[in-house]
Amino acid sequence: MLTMQDALTRLTDHWTARGCLVAQPMNTEVGAGTLNPATALRVLGPEPWRVAYVEPSVRPDDSRYGDNPNRLQTHTQYQVILKPEPGDAQELYLSSLEALGINLAAHDVRFVEDDWASPALGAWGLGWEVWLDGMEITQFTYFQQSGGLTLDPVSVEITYGMERILMALQGVRHFKDVAYAPGVTYGEAFGQAEYEMSRYYLDDADIDANRSLFETYAAEARRMLDARLPVPAHSYVLKCSHAFNVLDARGAIGTTERARAFARMRGLAHEVAGLWAERRAELGHPLGDAATRPAAGAAPAALPEIDAPGTFALEIGVEELPPHEVGRTAGHVTERLRDALEAAGLLPDEAVIDTYATPRRIIVVAAGVEPREPDTEQVVKGPRLAAAYDADGRPTKALLGFARGQGVDPAEVRAVTVGGGEYAGYVRHVTGRPAARVLAEALPRIVAGLRAEKNMRWNAPGLSFARPIRWLLALLDEHEIPFTVAGMTAGRTTYGHRRDARAVASAAELVATLRAAGVEPDPAERRRRVIASATGPARRAGGAVDFAAESALVEEIVNLVEEPVAVLGAFEEGYLELPPEILTTVMKKHQRYLPVRSPSGALLPAFVTVANGACDHDTVRAGNEAVLRARYEDASFFFAQDLRRSPEQIKRGLERLTFADRLGSMADRAGRIDGIAEELAARLDLTDAERETLSRAGELARFDLASAMVIELPGLAGTMAREYARRAGEPPAVADALYEMELPRSSGDAPPSGIVGAVLSVADRLDLLAGLFAVGSAPSGGSDPFGLRRAALGLTAVLRAHPRLAPITVEDGLAVAARHQPVEVAPQTLAEAARFVARRFEQTLLDEGHAVAVVRAVLPHAGSPAHAERAAADLAKLRDDARFQRLSAALQRVLRILPPDAEPGYDPALFTDRAEHRLHEAYQRVRAALPGRPALPEFTEAASALAHPVDLYFDAVMVMDEDPALRANRLGLLASIRALVGGVLDWREVG
Amino acid sequence: MLTMQDALTRLTDHWTARGCLVAQPMNTEVGAGTLNPATALRVLGPEPWRVAYVEPSVRPDDSRYGDNPNRLQTHTQYQVILKPEPGDAQELYLSSLEALGINLAAHDVRFVEDDWASPALGAWGLGWEVWLDGMEITQFTYFQQSGGLTLDPVSVEITYGMERILMALQGVRHFKDVAYAPGVTYGEAFGQAEYEMSRYYLDDADIDANRSLFETYAAEARRMLDARLPVPAHSYVLKCSHAFNVLDARGAIGTTERARAFARMRGLAHEVAGLWAERRAELGHPLGDAATRPAAGAAPAALPEIDAPGTFALEIGVEELPPHEVGRTAGHVTERLRDALEAAGLLPDEAVIDTYATPRRIIVVAAGVEPREPDTEQVVKGPRLAAAYDADGRPTKALLGFARGQGVDPAEVRAVTVGGGEYAGYVRHVTGRPAARVLAEALPRIVAGLRAEKNMRWNAPGLSFARPIRWLLALLDEHEIPFTVAGMTAGRTTYGHRRDARAVASAAELVATLRAAGVEPDPAERRRRVIASATGPARRAGGAVDFAAESALVEEIVNLVEEPVAVLGAFEEGYLELPPEILTTVMKKHQRYLPVRSPSGALLPAFVTVANGACDHDTVRAGNEAVLRARYEDASFFFAQDLRRSPEQIKRGLERLTFADRLGSMADRAGRIDGIAEELAARLDLTDAERETLSRAGELARFDLASAMVIELPGLAGTMAREYARRAGEPPAVADALYEMELPRSSGDAPPSGIVGAVLSVADRLDLLAGLFAVGSAPSGGSDPFGLRRAALGLTAVLRAHPRLAPITVEDGLAVAARHQPVEVAPQTLAEAARFVARRFEQTLLDEGHAVAVVRAVLPHAGSPAHAERAAADLAKLRDDARFQRLSAALQRVLRILPPDAEPGYDPALFTDRAEHRLHEAYQRVRAALPGRPALPEFTEAASALAHPVDLYFDAVMVMDEDPALRANRLGLLASIRALVGGVLDWREVG
Repeated sequence: MLTMQDALTRLTDHWTARGCLVAQPMNTEVGAGTLNPATALRVLGPEPWRVAYVEPSVRPDDSRYGDNPNRLQTHTQYQVILKPEPGDAQELYLSSLEALGINLAAHDVRFVEDDWASPALGAWGLGWEVWLDGMEITQFTYFQQSGGLTLDPVSVEITYGMERILMALQGVRHFKDVAYAPGVTYGEAFGQAEYEMSRYYLDDADIDANRSLFETYAAEARRMLDARLPVPAHSYVLKCSHAFNVLDARGAIGTTERARAFARMRGLAHEVAGLWAERRAELGHPLGDAATRPAAGAAPAALPEIDAPGTFALEIGVEELPPHEVGRTAGHVTERLRDALEAAGLLPDEAVIDTYATPRRIIVVAAGVEPREPDTEQVVKGPRLAAAYDADGRPTKALLGFARGQGVDPAEVRAVTVGGGEYAGYVRHVTGRPAARVLAEALPRIVAGLRAEKNMRWNAPGLSFARPIRWLLALLDEHEIPFTVAGMTAGRTTYGHRRDARAVASAAELVATLRAAGVEPDPAERRRRVIASATGPARRAGGAVDFAAESALVEEIVNLVEEPVAVLGAFEEGYLELPPEILTTVMKKHQRYLPVRSPSGALLPAFVTVANGACDHDTVRAGNEAVLRARYEDASFFFAQDLRRSPEQIKRGLERLTFADRLGSMADRAGRIDGIAEELAARLDLTDAERETLSRAGELARFDLASAMVIELPGLAGTMAREYARRAGEPPAVADALYEMELPRSSGDAPPSGIVGAVLSVADRLDLLAGLFAVGSAPSGGSDPFGLRRAALGLTAVLRAHPRLAPITVEDGLAVAARHQPVEVAPQTLAEAARFVARRFEQTLLDEGHAVAVVRAVLPHAGSPAHAERAAADLAKLRDDARFQRLSAALQRVLRILPPDAEPGYDPALFTDRAEHRLHEAYQRVRAALPGRPALPEFTEAASALAHPVDLYFDAVMVMDEDPALRANRLGLLASIRALVGGVLDWREVG
Repeated sequence: MLTMQDALTRLTDHWTARGCLVAQPMNTEVGAGTLNPATALRVLGPEPWRVAYVEPSVRPDDSRYGDNPNRLQTHTQYQVILKPEPGDAQELYLSSLEALGINLAAHDVRFVEDDWASPALGAWGLGWEVWLDGMEITQFTYFQQSGGLTLDPVSVEITYGMERILMALQGVRHFKDVAYAPGVTYGEAFGQAEYEMSRYYLDDADIDANRSLFETYAAEARRMLDARLPVPAHSYVLKCSHAFNVLDARGAIGTTERARAFARMRGLAHEVAGLWAERRAELGHPLGDAATRPAAGAAPAALPEIDAPGTFALEIGVEELPPHEVGRTAGHVTERLRDALEAAGLLPDEAVIDTYATPRRIIVVAAGVEPREPDTEQVVKGPRLAAAYDADGRPTKALLGFARGQGVDPAEVRAVTVGGGEYAGYVRHVTGRPAARVLAEALPRIVAGLRAEKNMRWNAPGLSFARPIRWLLALLDEHEIPFTVAGMTAGRTTYGHRRDARAVASAAELVATLRAAGVEPDPAERRRRVIASATGPARRAGGAVDFAAESALVEEIVNLVEEPVAVLGAFEEGYLELPPEILTTVMKKHQRYLPVRSPSGALLPAFVTVANGACDHDTVRAGNEAVLRARYEDASFFFAQDLRRSPEQIKRGLERLTFADRLGSMADRAGRIDGIAEELAARLDLTDAERETLSRAGELARFDLASAMVIELPGLAGTMAREYARRAGEPPAVADALYEMELPRSSGDAPPSGIVGAVLSVADRLDLLAGLFAVGSAPSGGSDPFGLRRAALGLTAVLRAHPRLAPITVEDGLAVAARHQPVEVAPQTLAEAARFVARRFEQTLLDEGHAVAVVRAVLPHAGSPAHAERAAADLAKLRDDARFQRLSAALQRVLRILPPDAEPGYDPALFTDRAEHRLHEAYQRVRAALPGRPALPEFTEAASALAHPVDLYFDAVMVMDEDPALRANRLGLLASIRALVGGVLDWREVG
């Protein structure tokens, strides 16, 4: 059996054989191998560096006294840095798994999108977690930034989680049972330390002492920076960080302290990075300079030619894309290629462009591409015709110069008309370029122009994309189009799984070649296969997968695998006692397993995982089952732990959760939600029972955020609140309200069904918007860390869904919320927040298919979104109604003539025309007939009486009379009408 | 080329293949691998444990900015613990060197005595430093105690110094040039850290901050002990220790602080150890119990018999003994064996016992051993003869019972005389045991009875010796005597070098067998070979070794090797510019090299090292040269560093050197020496020039203790003072006095030749004695950490050597010194110190051959040692002088009759006899004639006049008259005589 220490040795052998220097673990406590200076400092600057080391990583917060099978206060990372990233780090990594005795053909090994960011370190990178039969065993990251510095060259960081790997390899269920060395288990070697250090971190560490350590360390770090010594400074930053983690595990960090401490550590870490980079530069970069240099892109000289319409295939090979980028990127490439071909006239109507995409490749195949561009004629303009020939009709010097410059015989020059002017000129015949030339010029731009939502750099100068591009295939029929981008040259080689290289005979055969290699490039076909292959196993388990309900998950799976192979797994029935949301959250969100349900819809103790390609089903099943068991074991632990406390007790933990700078803790926020909800409720027509429910639910609002389960699985917020509240004996209505107040969780999610949950949901979102706008955290650009866009959408969705909430407008609600904030909220800030919500709402309505004019007409005066929605619907219908059209036309006449500052009010004594009297009377009648807040049809019904008098009025009366008194009186009458109708619609937009 | 990281990997492979678990370096700074809990805690208690790990060891005091080729603030230890010690750890270790590619046949690898003790950890062990061609590459220790706890089982600790090993293997001169990984040097990988951390430790660490860290750590350690959590407690003790080391490197630790800090850390460390042991016991010793158990010693059943006188050979095989134990042990074994054989009558006069000894074996060969004990007759005493037979002469019940009990026929009982009484009894004939039986019974006791000055335990129950005993050979002629001790059974196998096993045919062939294997067992022969083999090489270098001057070193070499092979080495001539004492100290004391001198006695740039057995001379030469070069490089560095400062500047460093608790720093002590010397000098008859020299030398007393050179090479104290003083332009007399005040450095060493050096030397030793007795640090048992015995001997030696110092008695001198101490010195303490010196002096005189009676008579009244010595010489001569004998006899009559409390004084008016008047007159005359402090001959000359009157007096006068007045008067006269003569000698001892 491979012991833990054998595994470490094998990895060291593997990586030293690949040029890594072996470093030692840091001699002060660190939370991760990344913090060791062999990573944290060495990834900075241009010097090449390859290193591998063990790093026992100390995370006080993960202390469990050694009781939890999977969680340790000190776990063992194996860390590798390759700088610059070598281009084949994935393959190097996979062969290291083979070195550990992992048969890659039997197991399901996958690279699953997982980006890494440590704002505290000013660091981020893109990459994956690597799954071995569903278990995360490694973090694989292309470092992009560290210490606030952009990294060039980019490093690959590979971090193995050794305990997990060894538990999987040895098939044990508790880390203590891992064979650490021959005859010695992990528990025997480290069990006592695990227990005792847990005791220290969770129970016994002295808070004042650690606070004093934090200060002392920070001060020493500061001094060392001032002394320009980054190495000791870094060491003290690490000590700082550990002291902070100890305090945190002891529950001693308040909101303000946390924010301050983070800011301080971040500041120090950034300075350390900057200073290190500076010092290395001063030392002349002793290890050399591997920064990426701009690549000279040259179009290929020799290119093939074809005679008849042909097929062109482009394959862009990438490392595993995030699933949501797969289709997006394929679409983008197709469009760009289509544009290029069309612009060159290479794409006749009968041409067919097919798009294929997997996580590892984007393929576009265009059939029927013309062999070459059509020839064209180009008019070249010379001197004005008048100046081209002298009186004798002989070419002037100007014309002769033009002809010489163009290299044409003056005799070929003739009169041409350009922009209405007459010129001497000539028509040049341009021969169309061969298709290969067109492509060779367009393709580099298409590849270099690839962009994703989040982009990274790698060792490819000029490129920036979601993940590294690793190969290019470009075939025109059987010919290669060898264009070059960032040092990569396109050819005819594709790859099946991993490094299974295949030469493709011709463009038309690319897809077949891939299928022969086991890769299904067509997402639709993969979707079919996911469903087809999962159906049988689910049936064997006595149930079925609800593919309709799981369509988003299926779509993700389709973009996670190139060759879907369903494997059925089971879990112990005992876990079915957990709330089903926990079970499905773990299965779907964490593991991408398809749950299996009985015909009645109840969960069965089974799941289907979709592996990527052929594998040993028993091995993959066992591995995935172990992962699920461990996760369910964890969940059971948290569930049991939470159930030992009442909701009130759990809620106290909110005080330890930071919300945002200057806005206090989550406890403060929960209190505000409660207060805002009560204040809103006062405006509503609620029953006594509803008021009672609201009062209690408000007290407990969001308490489950402090539960162990939600801290572990944040997606279960609300679900767990309902579960725990029910089990604690709260009335079902309270429990439901606590659940519903979290709704809607995303666009498309249902809003709360009950009024109490709706009020709380609205209060929650109003608090979020008012507070964060007040402290200047409104979304900017692509950044919306607090999810304010989602909050705005949720707010309007709830208000729309509940007619009983009509008394609450967005503006009023925000004003209420503002009064509850611990910071002052300026009126212009509130207005800004309201506009932000309105813009989201407008977009929603447009997305729902409302006409722009309708939305614009309705929105500014809608008050509540519910009104707005109804108004829009009404307007959409009324727009075709003759009476409404007449009324609208009349009112627009009124509005058009009125200056913005015209005040309502008039004196009938000054009327000079009968039409004025008639309008006055109509106005009085309509005003009397209109209800308080009339809906549009009511309004139309009542106000139509104005249409004819208005028309008569304008026919008879000169509003802008020369007599100022008369003029003012007439404007005053119209302004009164405007005041009466202006709040209903923006009539000018009705058009 | 083997890189540093390859070497670490190979060691890990080597030791894991031998059952070691691989631990990780400690995640807080430690000064040595020993401190890692994988050693510090795991060696405690009975659980077996094998572990190997890398430990980057941080020693702030060794910071050199990366400039020094051999010294780093962080050096890399490779640490191995084998618990229990496996019996073949030396061999396992040697094979690990082979794993590193070291050809043991080519190199000279040796185990050189080096015991380890860390009072701060309450830890000690015995073992070696391992030399590779003269370079210390490993510490090899049998741990005996840790944390104040006796270790059972004993662990072996093997600590490799990786930088040194790699420098040797790669043949580079600076650690920065070591190839750390392919293409990366040590300097490239760690040079910047080495520089920056040196900056922190030496220049930039904030003292207050580190002091505060020390306190915080200590407090947390304390709290964790109270919480019964030894693991976090240990971690905090380590942090404490590092903070202390940082403060120390920054020069911030004063005397009192150091002592207090050490006491505190020691206390914590002991508690941690005790608590760990307790907790492991509570956990039931999860890894098992390997404590040593008493071995059942059984004498062998079948033993050989011989018919004629035979030869017996005993070989006790050991791991390398300390050189001074080799001869001592051999002598002891020989005596014990001789005693056993003689007691059994097995050793006729013609028998010959030969003793052989090497560092690895003790051999005794006895030729002419009788085949068996002589038969004997034993008288068995029964009842009294009177009670044995009744009146009829028939055996009584008593006799019958006796006979039955003894199993003899009553008829065999006869009359025997025992102790003058007559008994019934009988004479039993006892057949002598065969020689093998006698030996088989005696040998286990001899082996188990082996003791050295410092003894250790190993995994051999019941044994305790300087180093482990590893094999036993016992042959009587060709027969084995298979006795068993602690699980080892004697046989016929011996070993040549290392594990070169050889069967020995018969006792007489043992020595020849060994010689055939290359081992020379005879020390005298080895001595001859050392000299013979060194002579040629020295001549080749143009000089010779002064073997007479180097006899002690030669003796040590003889006991360091089993097969002396001289190898000539050279060093760069440039180093000859260093003072020769430095060069020779390094060569002889550190490296055991024989210096080579020119005919004029000047050092040549060459040395002879004596390797152990055949080796590749070029390899061994190159290795030793590299070591010497490194050491001389270091010395040059220190020398240059010292020369940049004046003696006064150097002296300021004494303030940072602790002397002893409550006695301040070395600066305080130097000040006292100066003061005491001045006060003593006031009593002496010195010239003005001498007083001036004393004044200046006193100011600089012992300044060189703070020089870099003496801190590095303490044996050069005095030598460097003279050198630096001379170079600083001090008068030669001052420089010499500074040198001479350190004399004598050991018994047998010459005392100062000049009076100024002598006064300072005396003052130094008086200060030491007075001070340390005052603070309760007088030597006890074998422990004399401050060398007070040597100080006492030195004190009397100097006083004896300098007649001009006669005015100074030990008592007076101590009283002077007492007045200079910072603590009060009680009169009884002073008296105790004086008695301590007197006892040492008495022993010296006895050792010099003075008769016990003479020494005892002379000493108590000798005042100064110079006087005592003269008095002893005088008395020795006078003892045969008739007049002296008469005087002595008379005075003893006087002394015998006097009660101790008799007071001198009498009234001649009360005389009743003429004899009283005559004695009175004689007394008056003698008193008048005696000089102040008469020497014995003068005294005898003058006092002889008392002899006859005393005799007459006792003949005529009844001293103890019944009249109290008369009696008192007569005693008063005799007491007056006693007062006159009592100070000269202890007459009762004259005998």
